Amino acid sequence: MIFTPGKKLVMIGDSITDYERKRPVGEGLGEAIGHSYVVLVDALLKTTYPDLRLRVVNMGNSGDTVRDLKKRWRSDVLELDPDWVSILIGINDVWRQFDSPLRSEEHVCLEEYEETLEQLITFTEKEVEGIILMTPYYMEPNRRDPMRNLMDKYGEAVKRQAKKHGCVPVDLQRDFDEYLKYYNAQSITWDRLHPDTVGHMIIAKSFLRAAGFEWR
Amino acid sequence: MIFTPGKKLVMIGDSITDYERKRPVGEGLGEAIGHSYVVLVDALLKTTYPDLRLRVVNMGNSGDTVRDLKKRWRSDVLELDPDWVSILIGINDVWRQFDSPLRSEEHVCLEEYEETLEQLITFTEKEVEGIILMTPYYMEPNRRDPMRNLMDKYGEAVKRQAKKHGCVPVDLQRDFDEYLKYYNAQSITWDRLHPDTVGHMIIAKSFLRAAGFEWR
Amino acid sequence: MIFTPGKKLVMIGDSITDYERKRPVGEGLGEAIGHSYVVLVDALLKTTYPDLRLRVVNMGNSGDTVRDLKKRWRSDVLELDPDWVSILIGINDVWRQFDSPLRSEEHVCLEEYEETLEQLITFTEKEVEGIILMTPYYMEPNRRDPMRNLMDKYGEAVKRQAKKHGCVPVDLQRDFDEYLKYYNAQSITWDRLHPDTVGHMIIAKSFLRAAGFEWR
Amino acid sequence: MIFTPGKKLVMIGDSITDYERKRPVGEGLGEAIGHSYVVLVDALLKTTYPDLRLRVVNMGNSGDTVRDLKKRWRSDVLELDPDWVSILIGINDVWRQFDSPLRSEEHVCLEEYEETLEQLITFTEKEVEGIILMTPYYMEPNRRDPMRNLMDKYGEAVKRQAKKHGCVPVDLQRDFDEYLKYYNAQSITWDRLHPDTVGHMIIAKSFLRAAGFEWR
Amino acid sequence: MIFTPGKKLVMIGDSITDYERKRPVGEGLGEAIGHSYVVLVDALLKTTYPDLRLRVVNMGNSGDTVRDLKKRWRSDVLELDPDWVSILIGINDVWRQFDSPLRSEEHVCLEEYEETLEQLITFTEKEVEGIILMTPYYMEPNRRDPMRNLMDKYGEAVKRQAKKHGCVPVDLQRDFDEYLKYYNAQSITWDRLHPDTVGHMIIAKSFLRAAGFEWR
Amino acid sequence: MIFTPGKKLVMIGDSITDYERKRPVGEGLGEAIGHSYVVLVDALLKTTYPDLRLRVVNMGNSGDTVRDLKKRWRSDVLELDPDWVSILIGINDVWRQFDSPLRSEEHVCLEEYEETLEQLITFTEKEVEGIILMTPYYMEPNRRDPMRNLMDKYGEAVKRQAKKHGCVPVDLQRDFDEYLKYYNAQSITWDRLHPDTVGHMIIAKSFLRAAGFEWR
Amino acid sequence: MIFTPGKKLVMIGDSITDYERKRPVGEGLGEAIGHSYVVLVDALLKTTYPDLRLRVVNMGNSGDTVRDLKKRWRSDVLELDPDWVSILIGINDVWRQFDSPLRSEEHVCLEEYEETLEQLITFTEKEVEGIILMTPYYMEPNRRDPMRNLMDKYGEAVKRQAKKHGCVPVDLQRDFDEYLKYYNAQSITWDRLHPDTVGHMIIAKSFLRAAGFEWR
Amino acid sequence: MIFTPGKKLVMIGDSITDYERKRPVGEGLGEAIGHSYVVLVDALLKTTYPDLRLRVVNMGNSGDTVRDLKKRWRSDVLELDPDWVSILIGINDVWRQFDSPLRSEEHVCLEEYEETLEQLITFTEKEVEGIILMTPYYMEPNRRDPMRNLMDKYGEAVKRQAKKHGCVPVDLQRDFDEYLKYYNAQSITWDRLHPDTVGHMIIAKSFLRAAGFEWR
Repeated sequence: MIFTPGKKLVMIGDSITDYERKRPVGEGLGEAIGHSYVVLVDALLKTTYPDLRLRVVNMGNSGDTVRDLKKRWRSDVLELDPDWVSILIGINDVWRQFDSPLRSEEHVCLEEYEETLEQLITFTEKEVEGIILMTPYYMEPNRRDPMRNLMDKYGEAVKRQAKKHGCVPVDLQRDFDEYLKYYNAQSITWDRLHPDTVGHMIIAKSFLRAAGFEWR
Repeated sequence: MIFTPGKKLVMIGDSITDYERKRPVGEGLGEAIGHSYVVLVDALLKTTYPDLRLRVVNMGNSGDTVRDLKKRWRSDVLELDPDWVSILIGINDVWRQFDSPLRSEEHVCLEEYEETLEQLITFTEKEVEGIILMTPYYMEPNRRDPMRNLMDKYGEAVKRQAKKHGCVPVDLQRDFDEYLKYYNAQSITWDRLHPDTVGHMIIAKSFLRAAGFEWR
Repeated sequence: MIFTPGKKLVMIGDSITDYERKRPVGEGLGEAIGHSYVVLVDALLKTTYPDLRLRVVNMGNSGDTVRDLKKRWRSDVLELDPDWVSILIGINDVWRQFDSPLRSEEHVCLEEYEETLEQLITFTEKEVEGIILMTPYYMEPNRRDPMRNLMDKYGEAVKRQAKKHGCVPVDLQRDFDEYLKYYNAQSITWDRLHPDTVGHMIIAKSFLRAAGFEWR
Repeated sequence: MIFTPGKKLVMIGDSITDYERKRPVGEGLGEAIGHSYVVLVDALLKTTYPDLRLRVVNMGNSGDTVRDLKKRWRSDVLELDPDWVSILIGINDVWRQFDSPLRSEEHVCLEEYEETLEQLITFTEKEVEGIILMTPYYMEPNRRDPMRNLMDKYGEAVKRQAKKHGCVPVDLQRDFDEYLKYYNAQSITWDRLHPDTVGHMIIAKSFLRAAGFEWR
Repeated sequence: MIFTPGKKLVMIGDSITDYERKRPVGEGLGEAIGHSYVVLVDALLKTTYPDLRLRVVNMGNSGDTVRDLKKRWRSDVLELDPDWVSILIGINDVWRQFDSPLRSEEHVCLEEYEETLEQLITFTEKEVEGIILMTPYYMEPNRRDPMRNLMDKYGEAVKRQAKKHGCVPVDLQRDFDEYLKYYNAQSITWDRLHPDTVGHMIIAKSFLRAAGFEWR
Repeated sequence: MIFTPGKKLVMIGDSITDYERKRPVGEGLGEAIGHSYVVLVDALLKTTYPDLRLRVVNMGNSGDTVRDLKKRWRSDVLELDPDWVSILIGINDVWRQFDSPLRSEEHVCLEEYEETLEQLITFTEKEVEGIILMTPYYMEPNRRDPMRNLMDKYGEAVKRQAKKHGCVPVDLQRDFDEYLKYYNAQSITWDRLHPDTVGHMIIAKSFLRAAGFEWR
Repeated sequence: MIFTPGKKLVMIGDSITDYERKRPVGEGLGEAIGHSYVVLVDALLKTTYPDLRLRVVNMGNSGDTVRDLKKRWRSDVLELDPDWVSILIGINDVWRQFDSPLRSEEHVCLEEYEETLEQLITFTEKEVEGIILMTPYYMEPNRRDPMRNLMDKYGEAVKRQAKKHGCVPVDLQRDFDEYLKYYNAQSITWDRLHPDTVGHMIIAKSFLRAAGFEWR
Repeated sequence: MIFTPGKKLVMIGDSITDYERKRPVGEGLGEAIGHSYVVLVDALLKTTYPDLRLRVVNMGNSGDTVRDLKKRWRSDVLELDPDWVSILIGINDVWRQFDSPLRSEEHVCLEEYEETLEQLITFTEKEVEGIILMTPYYMEPNRRDPMRNLMDKYGEAVKRQAKKHGCVPVDLQRDFDEYLKYYNAQSITWDRLHPDTVGHMIIAKSFLRAAGFEWR
């Protein structure tokens, strides 16, 4: 288990992370933490390692690209003084190229994506114990599908940066691919991007395995 | 143009057709006809052939399979006394096999689909001037995708029945495929099934071309 | 077809144009473009000329007169950097003289209307490839009706300016008149101004004919 | 003044009369009587003839034609045991012929209109002290307008029946025509049928003049 | 009739006047003028003197005392540039002394009331053709009732100021008293202050009689 | 204290009693008992005599007269098997004569009131330990006010029946009169009938004094 | 793992189970399965044993006691034809004795509880592969607290019946007790009964451990 | 009775006090004073000592700790110019330590609590006639329960400060304990903190006994 007692983990990302979290900070009583994989990670950690007393904070914002993360990085990550940061970004960076092909001002190309992600890592790596980088994904098993194909390239960038900066990599695409051998994507998602609780559990389990979680 | 003056066309189907039409009958002032391809067909016909005085009625019901159409065929088609009937069904028959793989009681297999469709044609063909059969579609250009692959088989059944019974066939899948050479499916649909107005215009134009419509 | 590939068309006007478009800019996924003739123009162009990749933006504001357009011309037209601009204005300029006869401060007289319209053209003509000017209309076939009579004068002003500045003219009143030979105005409008989808299709077709659209 | 002390007046009609009256009976505290000319008639009578103690009941139903009135005549008029009955019907009978030209099953032609109106009078005349018949109207000053022209024919039928059966006639069309010499119809109505409070006051004053009302 | 053609009348007051008028100015299409006596005055004047072309504006604000009127007198009366101003104020000045006996900071005593009213008159009298002053009222026929008794004193102040400054006086209390000889107050008001449409008609008729209105 | 341990008290009446109690039975967790004097009686008894374990049930219905109570007496009182019943009725019986003077079918005259009240007592007196009868009231200190005057007669009937049948009388009018020596009615009620919490406390204290309650 | 491929598990209970599940059957797309431990069990099983293809159905009803379960057992359990049934009932049976001490008709005493539970088991055991019995719980660590003390007795009954009938026992109270050694109950529940997602994860993990679940 | 005529009492605290009071000041007509013990105190005082004419103002804010009270003390207490101030604070100071154990920045420890409370007293004591200090409470009879145990320490601090500064002490915990000998806490509260009207009556009676209230 990579987390030691009394630490704070900030999980940032887009609508996959957000899922109705409370503003301005997604932490606290009731449903403040939202309904995404973040609450599943928190519940599995709290019930399995109750002595860890880990604080988990959801800072996802629907619609964000890495360009948006950069704008709010100081207020939404650094000022919360985290010990660990997890990042799940890139889905909108790619999606806008497919759902809004004519509005190129909203596209974040691969080069900008990787450079900006590296800037975020650089701003943060000395301030925290570790950074966890999750790959964006597309719940389409056909790797030659144009959007899957491009998403894989963004995922490669994530893994490249994780290796370069010693971050913990989490390959969500691989774990969704594994699940899609058994069930069609349609059974857990309408748009191949936003999952139901089964899909969020896939993310939570990927994350926890990378963190050295042991079930008991 | 296959329609002669003073006729009534009933367009039946599932949520693609329905799109917030009025109950019990989708005809009349305001938005009674709904927001789907049906209103586009009506508007293009009324403005181009104002002398036709064609009545267009939307009888789509969200979620319907061909099994559901059969249950409401008497009240929702025959009792409206149409001169023409168009049918766009099959999407849910296929989709349930993918989004609800464990609830097999909701699946309508190809054999039941084609048999039931033929029953509806048989009930109706002597009562009307003609029947227009539209193929179900899946806005996925990869023909080896399992759901596209199965949808194509249902589309074949539609074309087979159109040929056998002398109905007017409308190959929606072909026209969506043509559009998808230029734009990604994501730009007109979230789930590759429910289109925006651009997608409904593709359906309306397919239908109208089959009906011998001439723009002016 | 007057539009060449990769251009942007901004369509501005009053509530006829607006029809629930998104703020601040009526372009994008879902129903951002609103439900007026603008979405019909966009859908007919996208499905017929998919290779054009034309961006269509709805900048209508309910209640606007030409006096209001002038106030927001910089932010709502010029700053969007369009290649083509279409204008449909004048209905409220005339209507206020009839529905609010005592509040003369809200009336825009013919002279002010034409002068302001010319100013908008002058501000814009050098910045764009072309301007499309649509006449205001009143769905009243009796040309001696006082409001129809006055609206015709505003329509003449539009046509005069189009000629003077080499803009593309669209005579909506003429095309509504043609339709009203077959159907009463009441069947497509409550107030002889705001049409249903059939009426918006009349506008869209007028516009497209003027733009050299060919159906296929 | 035709009303003597302690009587009950039931005013029936369509949406012009109804205007949010309470169900099942439009009489009582608060806004039970609705916001149409009925409340104005009641207020002018109560404040001018407080000793009359006249009960005024609103039984209008939005959308009704004379065909609909006949269906509810027993429950909504006779069973309320009125001393006086006023009828304002015919607008929808005519309007449906113009706004829904293809749905002829909703049209009430002049012959059916006059016959049914006479039946209602015949059912009622022996049970009450008097019947007040108001003409339907169309706030269009041009008598050659097709809908105005047809509405006038229905108004003639009302006046013919009033004369034949000794009912009190109220010529609303004439009084609206008078007002329209000074103001455009658009200033008091969106659709030339549903008036604002100024228009309802025209109806109330027509009614009261016919009833021998004296202002004080 | 005191009003000559083409004038503007601003009617100001408290919730009796306001009754859901539009902000910031209670004039215009639809229900902008609210539902109080103001709309009745406007409708009776428009329909009886259509050639007057009088503009009527509702500037009532719920809860206002004369102290509140003074604060908004410039923006809400003088800047609208009226030819005539009517004032109905004083009910809350008195009521607060009875419904909130312990919160004396909300009480406007008789002396302050009369002085402030006179200031408003002085600010205005040279700017307009005339001022119409309506007495506040309490729908309680027992003149020894403490609140009625005090209200009468405020009414006397209104009449005193009207006389001193040559304003048109309207004695609403007297006309309510007359009506209460025939009907109990409970039939037109819950709290003896806010009337239904019958009660607003009493106010409208009082006002119009003072203005020299002749019914026709 | 008239209540012995383990008993059930059903309190029935009109809107004064009801005040948003739960249906069908006003007893239980949360706000089931409503917000009227009933919850104050319950709270003062529970906190002062916790060992009594008295069940208090609110069965008021807004708008009820004694005529309405009779219709629901079996289901709403007898079938609940109470040990004690309290009745507060008569306000609407009187009020309708004042607020709806023309709708005499809604008036319950004094004779019918007293006879019906006696019937309810007779149905019940052998089934319960005791009946508590509260007088209706009007928060108008002037006894010559017509509605106060009539209400007093109904109150006399209540006291007469209490005496005749050995019920516990509660003179609410007397206790309101006492309070009104210090504060105006307007400070606790809008319509002199429906009190705020201060007014409900007056009722609760009257009731409790009659029941032999001792504060501690 | 006790579940073999292709089976159906029906999970029944009270509000702890229900948590906004869909009616009439809590199975299907979207949030039909609700937000309780049931969706967590389903997600952990689907993602860990994708080849099991287990159907999980939520049939909880808020407020139910074992007495209520018995009334709906045929329609809500047996007619769904399950292979496995889990039961979590008893919380309301006990709670009503504490929150509604005077309404003894709502109390389900220990004897009735155990007898009824045994009846449900007897009705079902031959129809299914197995029954899983979860103990009710109270998130109060002090075993001498009266409600905890009584809840433990109901839990003993559950374990007794599990042993007698060979059902799979799940001791939720024990697992909540374990968690409460680390965190106060207030951090996961407002009322010591309804948990947040952390608390539902405790239930889900207890259930899965009893079912032989192995994390991977 | 400690209150003399014509004084103002400001009651400040957290959600127990607040209970939907009006902003910015919880005083006035209707439900401005909220639904907590404050309205009960006001109603019992007004009806029992009508000649006192005591103003009672509710200034509770949901969620407040003593740290929050300090921030708003000037605007919410001193500027209202009270004669008496009552304080009920400390519940959230303790609760956050139990429901949010990891967010220590929200905890107000005993030392800070007592110091801040003393500051508030010091700011105020010379400005008013007296201060009434109510102990925070926890409706848990087991004194060894950790949260009860800690709450008792905060209650001791309140009593210590009351003694030191000559404030009127009100021991709410003692009075809740007394009630809990007869009824379980669950019957008047969901979370052992927020009471129903019975519980608020316990607080009101404790307060009034301390103030020398005599029932009559």
